[in-house]
Amino acid sequence: MSTPLTISVDAMGGDNAPNMAIEAINLNLARHPGVRFLLFGRERQLTPLLEQYANVKSVAEIRDTIDVVGSGEKPSVALRTGRQSSMRRAIDAVGAGEADAVVSAGNTGALMAMAKFVLKTLPGVDRPAIATVFPTRRGRTVMLDLGANVECDENNLVQFAIMGEVFSRKVLGLERPTVGILNIGEEDLKGNVAVKKAAAILQESNLSFHFNGFVEGTDIGSGTVDVIVTDGFTGNVALKTVEGTSKLFSYYLKTALTSSPMARMGALLAGPALRKLRKNVDPRQHDGAMFLGLNGVCVKSHGGTDALGFSNAVHVAVELVRDRVNEGIKKDFAKLNADFAVNSKVATG
Amino acid sequence: MSTPLTISVDAMGGDNAPNMAIEAINLNLARHPGVRFLLFGRERQLTPLLEQYANVKSVAEIRDTIDVVGSGEKPSVALRTGRQSSMRRAIDAVGAGEADAVVSAGNTGALMAMAKFVLKTLPGVDRPAIATVFPTRRGRTVMLDLGANVECDENNLVQFAIMGEVFSRKVLGLERPTVGILNIGEEDLKGNVAVKKAAAILQESNLSFHFNGFVEGTDIGSGTVDVIVTDGFTGNVALKTVEGTSKLFSYYLKTALTSSPMARMGALLAGPALRKLRKNVDPRQHDGAMFLGLNGVCVKSHGGTDALGFSNAVHVAVELVRDRVNEGIKKDFAKLNADFAVNSKVATG
Repeated sequence: MSTPLTISVDAMGGDNAPNMAIEAINLNLARHPGVRFLLFGRERQLTPLLEQYANVKSVAEIRDTIDVVGSGEKPSVALRTGRQSSMRRAIDAVGAGEADAVVSAGNTGALMAMAKFVLKTLPGVDRPAIATVFPTRRGRTVMLDLGANVECDENNLVQFAIMGEVFSRKVLGLERPTVGILNIGEEDLKGNVAVKKAAAILQESNLSFHFNGFVEGTDIGSGTVDVIVTDGFTGNVALKTVEGTSKLFSYYLKTALTSSPMARMGALLAGPALRKLRKNVDPRQHDGAMFLGLNGVCVKSHGGTDALGFSNAVHVAVELVRDRVNEGIKKDFAKLNADFAVNSKVATG
Repeated sequence: MSTPLTISVDAMGGDNAPNMAIEAINLNLARHPGVRFLLFGRERQLTPLLEQYANVKSVAEIRDTIDVVGSGEKPSVALRTGRQSSMRRAIDAVGAGEADAVVSAGNTGALMAMAKFVLKTLPGVDRPAIATVFPTRRGRTVMLDLGANVECDENNLVQFAIMGEVFSRKVLGLERPTVGILNIGEEDLKGNVAVKKAAAILQESNLSFHFNGFVEGTDIGSGTVDVIVTDGFTGNVALKTVEGTSKLFSYYLKTALTSSPMARMGALLAGPALRKLRKNVDPRQHDGAMFLGLNGVCVKSHGGTDALGFSNAVHVAVELVRDRVNEGIKKDFAKLNADFAVNSKVATG
């Protein structure tokens, strides 16, 4: 951790960049005084914004970059041709030890490709995964992968389980988190080959963590387990389905509470309680997904995010650095992975 | 359609069987007077229940079956050994023309295997799919497959698109429904091989329907398209994620509205409006998924359903028969499939 703690920001990533990035930092100043920011982006756009936010200007430094990775750009193309982009240079700052973490709301695939190339993966990790924390009825649940790996085999899923378990211990402070694999039924006979094999491997592995077997889509909201493991395709659909359903529910609620004078009066009286509810289900409050398995902290904010959402992603990055989460993951993953290798050898050999 | 319209019920399927099946029929009597029911299940359990519901007794006939397909039973085993089960005999009644549709809350995989074996698939359909209607912000959207086919290739997805389009015209009464494939981004470069190939086939096919390209998980709630096509693994996870998120939201709402005397008073005033909201998000109101692509009407109710949910599934079955939906699908699917074959030949040859 550098002194002061430094966050590298891809100020050009996301639909509402760069304004929302500067406003987000402004929103974070009170929460994290003393944190420094490196802003990668077009100087001529960023300078006038910093003039508006004098408080941000005093803790931020602009690094002029001209190129921007497009939201529809192919990751391999971005990796090859985007060396001077705001995204790449923001990641480079972490690689060079100039910053402790990078935050971007840009193209997910490009961010993953570049972060993997620059920061490298942790020993034993074949593919990094995107993880985030969901609010549930029981508290909070970590889910991964949320979109980095479209097709996963059993070994990928097993590695995600190990990384997710360590992450939930470090971030949620749980002593012995429970882990489940997302499937379409709790019975062992259901599901695709990868989930069945991954469950069999984890069941036989004698890993020192609590594997609960299969969970279903309903368990995301109920919080049956602390860590839900899935491939990036299913995880991304589930993440966005939660978001869409929350929006639909909010719409229904708003419609109901404005449907009659009586309902409107009721809404007025219940106002403070309803505002708390709205905050609970606001996806911006849960913005900021971590790329797990990298040798460095990289946080992805939602592409369509605004200042509030991006400020939460920045907050997540600061906390991950402060709590030395990646150092913990590195250490524990190496240990679990070694145990796992030994156990698998015993089991198969 | 037989006279009177006859529904065959697997009275032993589902966690709350057989009581909920009888209560469900009772709930449906006013909505669908004149419909007759064949109840397949253990006579010694069903007879005392019918004594309690004299109105049901007058329109129902018990067919004694001893065997019950277990919820964890492997479909292939159920198909081989369950010939005398309530599920199988209920399907047989449709195959023999004794009933117009079958409804079951039992083991989905077994129901699909048996229904496929007894009723056969429509010409041109390789694999039937489970379809249901979701409430959305714009109205209603059909989604398929919801769990019949864990792994799907591009041809399966294309057939689901054609079946889903016809279904939404017949059931939602839309003249020219829009169709989208569920993916993890709207860009063509994202996603797995099957969705990319399926989208390319549909884009090039010149089918007489409106293909919108890719949609995401958020589009399920927003109702961007009228038909969402996906594989059974992803679809099942999405379906159950909607359910879990709705439950979480209801829990938050209840907690908020009982958190203070003021909030409780507000809830009282807004009571009627909130009850309507609760009905909107109650999954039991949307129970009843159709197996599309079969030569007969087979409706699946949720395994954990109660009388209210099962009565909706029975209602769906009655409506599907009354509106001759499967006849329409058969005709239109044959036409679209022929057009598609011609177009594909032109496109590839």
